[in-house]
Amino acid sequence: MASINAQSGIKKGKLIGIGVGPGDPELLTLKAHRLIESAPVISFIENPQGESQAKTIASASLNAKSLQIPVVINMNRDRLSANKAYDQAAIRIAEQLDQGRDVVFLCEGDPLFYGSYAYLLERLQCDYLCESVPGISSVFASASVLCQPLTRLKDSFAVLNGRNSDDALLQALNAHDSLVIMKAGQARPRILALLQQSGRIADAVYLEYIGRDNQRIVTDVATLENKEGAYFSLFVIVRKDAMT
Amino acid sequence: MASINAQSGIKKGKLIGIGVGPGDPELLTLKAHRLIESAPVISFIENPQGESQAKTIASASLNAKSLQIPVVINMNRDRLSANKAYDQAAIRIAEQLDQGRDVVFLCEGDPLFYGSYAYLLERLQCDYLCESVPGISSVFASASVLCQPLTRLKDSFAVLNGRNSDDALLQALNAHDSLVIMKAGQARPRILALLQQSGRIADAVYLEYIGRDNQRIVTDVATLENKEGAYFSLFVIVRKDAMT
Repeated sequence: MASINAQSGIKKGKLIGIGVGPGDPELLTLKAHRLIESAPVISFIENPQGESQAKTIASASLNAKSLQIPVVINMNRDRLSANKAYDQAAIRIAEQLDQGRDVVFLCEGDPLFYGSYAYLLERLQCDYLCESVPGISSVFASASVLCQPLTRLKDSFAVLNGRNSDDALLQALNAHDSLVIMKAGQARPRILALLQQSGRIADAVYLEYIGRDNQRIVTDVATLENKEGAYFSLFVIVRKDAMT
Repeated sequence: MASINAQSGIKKGKLIGIGVGPGDPELLTLKAHRLIESAPVISFIENPQGESQAKTIASASLNAKSLQIPVVINMNRDRLSANKAYDQAAIRIAEQLDQGRDVVFLCEGDPLFYGSYAYLLERLQCDYLCESVPGISSVFASASVLCQPLTRLKDSFAVLNGRNSDDALLQALNAHDSLVIMKAGQARPRILALLQQSGRIADAVYLEYIGRDNQRIVTDVATLENKEGAYFSLFVIVRKDAMT
């Protein structure tokens, strides 16, 4: 990785993935706030309607003078189309880095935990200096909203994505004291069935859009509609007897 | 839970557990900084020598006018002695809450993830309003220091405490794409043997005191001394082939 641009002799800028947390703008770290405010260039995922959750969360920290590079991704489209969007974004970001400008990439939650920053890193990390600033993951924000310890002492804890197979989810439900199933919306009916099957439905709480205006918490999960839910949704499952 | 003190008629204060992150003072959230700065009373774990990691991390946010309630715990002593310290702290904190003062309890990392806030909650949550402000966990700070994605798409992820049994650790090493073993110091020789046994030693990185002056990172874990290490230490294990 050369930090000097061979053609221009300019010191290359660095790419900084920054976690902005799950929704509450006050859950940005002091470091995230400082770096976003002073960023010459910021980039973020945007949907085809021009909406960006990450940019909205960070809006109080944004500087009007920063150049903006939106990465337009249609979440309902296939992997190929997303890959193309990342390819194009990497080219635009590289142009800025080559001119010596640092680029801040805004990420919901934490940038390295089920985040899109990984896709930029795999395209740019070989040629440019890349850094990361951790953010509050929705996993921890959920526990705080519930004021419910996730783990104590020897508890084991797992995080799974709702896209995992029934077998993988069931194994985790049986093996771990505490777990969180993220991105649970699409898989909600499957997850509800697996919670019943593993006898852990009473241990579960369901949360949507944590820290945002449309936040929703369902503590009696057995009453939850047995159909697909929001993309930003998760189940927190903590063994009840462990908490007494 | 009555929010009014029956004897005095005063509105009771609330207890707020606040995560201050793993070490870098800039990893406090804006919310943590605001609440710590304005807290009438702050409380924190302190060792018998009067040192408190959580207070040190938050020192730039502390207000000299806040009343301080240290909870003195000797980490080398038994569970009984720690329970006694929490009992006494709960009484002193309750006195402040009864007088209508909010009490902020500072926690390293996140307050609800392997944290001591759980022990105060179990003593005070029945009688007082308790809240929590999430903090950056060392799990995510480690990934950022390494600029290494922890999980992507369908990856499964687990966090275990080094105090877990060999069987539990081995099962997790075999079952999950990515995992973090926290509080790895005392168990280091056991963990190194289990990493060998599971064929995952090349996937592992060892970190100590993340974001502090004495931070240490060992990327070739096979070279790590086969003896006990620091309390604030962890292994990050990410499947290498998953990251190509």
